[in-house]
Amino acid sequence: MRTEDVRADIPLLRENVYLDAASTTPTPLPIVRAMTEYFEGYNANTGRGAYSLAVEATMKLQEARRKVAGFINASEDEIVFTKNTSEAINIVASGLKFRKGDSVVVPNIEHHSNFLPWLRLRERGVDVRIVMADENGVVGPAMVEEAVDETTRLVTITHISNALGTVQDVKEIERIAHENGALYMIDGAQSIGHMKVDVRELGADFAAFPGHKGTLGPVGTGFLYCRSECQDELEPFMLGGGTVIDVSEDDYVLEEFPSRFEAGTLNIAGFIGLGASIDYINRIGIHKIRKHGLKMTEKLCSEVSSIDKIQCYGDPQNIYGILSFNIDNMDPHDVAKLLDETAGVCVRSGHHCAIPAMRHLGVHESGGTVRASIHYYNTDEDIEVLAETLREIAMMG
Amino acid sequence: MRTEDVRADIPLLRENVYLDAASTTPTPLPIVRAMTEYFEGYNANTGRGAYSLAVEATMKLQEARRKVAGFINASEDEIVFTKNTSEAINIVASGLKFRKGDSVVVPNIEHHSNFLPWLRLRERGVDVRIVMADENGVVGPAMVEEAVDETTRLVTITHISNALGTVQDVKEIERIAHENGALYMIDGAQSIGHMKVDVRELGADFAAFPGHKGTLGPVGTGFLYCRSECQDELEPFMLGGGTVIDVSEDDYVLEEFPSRFEAGTLNIAGFIGLGASIDYINRIGIHKIRKHGLKMTEKLCSEVSSIDKIQCYGDPQNIYGILSFNIDNMDPHDVAKLLDETAGVCVRSGHHCAIPAMRHLGVHESGGTVRASIHYYNTDEDIEVLAETLREIAMMG
Repeated sequence: MRTEDVRADIPLLRENVYLDAASTTPTPLPIVRAMTEYFEGYNANTGRGAYSLAVEATMKLQEARRKVAGFINASEDEIVFTKNTSEAINIVASGLKFRKGDSVVVPNIEHHSNFLPWLRLRERGVDVRIVMADENGVVGPAMVEEAVDETTRLVTITHISNALGTVQDVKEIERIAHENGALYMIDGAQSIGHMKVDVRELGADFAAFPGHKGTLGPVGTGFLYCRSECQDELEPFMLGGGTVIDVSEDDYVLEEFPSRFEAGTLNIAGFIGLGASIDYINRIGIHKIRKHGLKMTEKLCSEVSSIDKIQCYGDPQNIYGILSFNIDNMDPHDVAKLLDETAGVCVRSGHHCAIPAMRHLGVHESGGTVRASIHYYNTDEDIEVLAETLREIAMMG
Repeated sequence: MRTEDVRADIPLLRENVYLDAASTTPTPLPIVRAMTEYFEGYNANTGRGAYSLAVEATMKLQEARRKVAGFINASEDEIVFTKNTSEAINIVASGLKFRKGDSVVVPNIEHHSNFLPWLRLRERGVDVRIVMADENGVVGPAMVEEAVDETTRLVTITHISNALGTVQDVKEIERIAHENGALYMIDGAQSIGHMKVDVRELGADFAAFPGHKGTLGPVGTGFLYCRSECQDELEPFMLGGGTVIDVSEDDYVLEEFPSRFEAGTLNIAGFIGLGASIDYINRIGIHKIRKHGLKMTEKLCSEVSSIDKIQCYGDPQNIYGILSFNIDNMDPHDVAKLLDETAGVCVRSGHHCAIPAMRHLGVHESGGTVRASIHYYNTDEDIEVLAETLREIAMMG
């Protein structure tokens, strides 16, 4: 599939220059159709229903789980369906059985969702060690090495920074974590669907993913990869329907993984949509998406950074898919508003749920940054419209 | 709207006699349409986006919250959007700050989702007191009164039993809870959308609801009502994007309620669908739904209980919308399968995520019960097809 084929499947691109993939991506029509087929044809609950509609819904949900697992080179019993990436991370942070004196290591520039759940562990006596990134938002493996020791239970890092687009050295940090006997968790919110993400190759013990960003699936979906050998490390986050095989007034016996982590009725339609989105991504080809992404990122950096009065953040050699920037003396929110009003350009502005990262860049007080982020549906023209409009705004400003 | 108008909006009813509303309901087309409109027209993330698509998504999500709040006579800042009822209950059970020696009171016939999260509190030193229902599945207020004392932090009960259809005396139990200074939580999974549920009238401090059952909304939605005076009793369940107003390496400051409980990207499409489903229910009229429900329940009881070799559970004078039964010496799963194969009748079979309730009825070992459950889209003919087919199965069996 070419970019124009994908664009034809996303009606809202006709009237908008959508540059906010890092927040959520518009869901192409074939994926929406997979969901409406569920609603219209076999809208039943999954689980142990004996009737054929329920059996069909259950099989389709399992099929989706297989597709998702295959996409990251996991097996289907290593995938927990969650409502979003945040839930996936909270499952691990809340569920790990910590011993007194354990430490966790987390960078300072993470998205709040991969920062707060760890920070809160201090209340449980966990030594939360925060590693400072460099001025470009790169988390140096040497800094991680310094923070890790024999008390370290887990090291976590975001594959690609949502605030800056920085691509982290996840393989080297994996080596450090595992050499020190720590568990290793990756937040793949900004990499999945944008490049090949192979959890075995990455050596992750846990990895959290959204369904609604790079994979082009619907909002309301996410998933947690949990390596089979690590599944007993986690206490279930929620309990309820579907999580147990027996209950008495005195005790309960948990279901196998992943059921024990999936309490209550799932977003069945959403996960069927997610399965369809994996098919869709595979139809485009992940290598083609990455190639396109590299080209777009390069164009984005060179066009935007060449504009007078604009400051870009991060090292252009080491960012992917995301560019954070500011216009001198302008509130990023105003810039985003003007981009939309003038040319229908959709970009995020503000702190991007990463206030420590904004402090790190020294832009917290001034309202954060403007952030443009791309996917396979974006074109050279999109970047040109962004750059042209920015140039006009910068001149006015 | 008449029953046939609603049926016209649910394509799968053409070929199925759907009697499994207690598990999930099929979502009518106008609600599916509200979701596809989001996906096709303004598929952006909510929150602080400056561009108009994001503003539109945010406004529509808030509108949905207002509709949901209005439907139960709450205010919109008392509603937390969750992925399902289980999450809503877990938020309260995990989030309440218990003191050593506190007790909670919970009936023995609850759905696992309103049983396990409380049972697990024993690990935190909470005295979990289980109240036995009578042989009809009625939780006697006198039994609750006996269990409650000055240590009781919370009393919880399901409004209508998912396993038996029993309507509990939620008002009298509320009186007992509050007279003893305890908090009061209702699981409204089987009442919302089937009858008027007014949280103020019920006197609930917390109430958990699905979006995908009685209200006819999509899977992947639920919500928690939390009375404004009780909001500070709860620690946030998950932390992440959207839950804080400030974060440093040392501390964080929580957002207001309900944002502090809604980490990460929400199921925006789903909640917009839920808002549309509230409009839809209001268009039918909740009193009309209840009247229809009472008539259907009565017919269900009288038709099914008159069949030879069939035993019904619960007191027909005190059940609503749900009928649990068995055919002598037949596995309930086989009965459900035969109903589907013979006449396209969709009913649940098994333990209905309520194993203690099944033990209570003495049917745990024999595989639980068959359960038929209705909504406004069901007709006299549906019940007749069920009864006729059951008669044939019972004769063969």
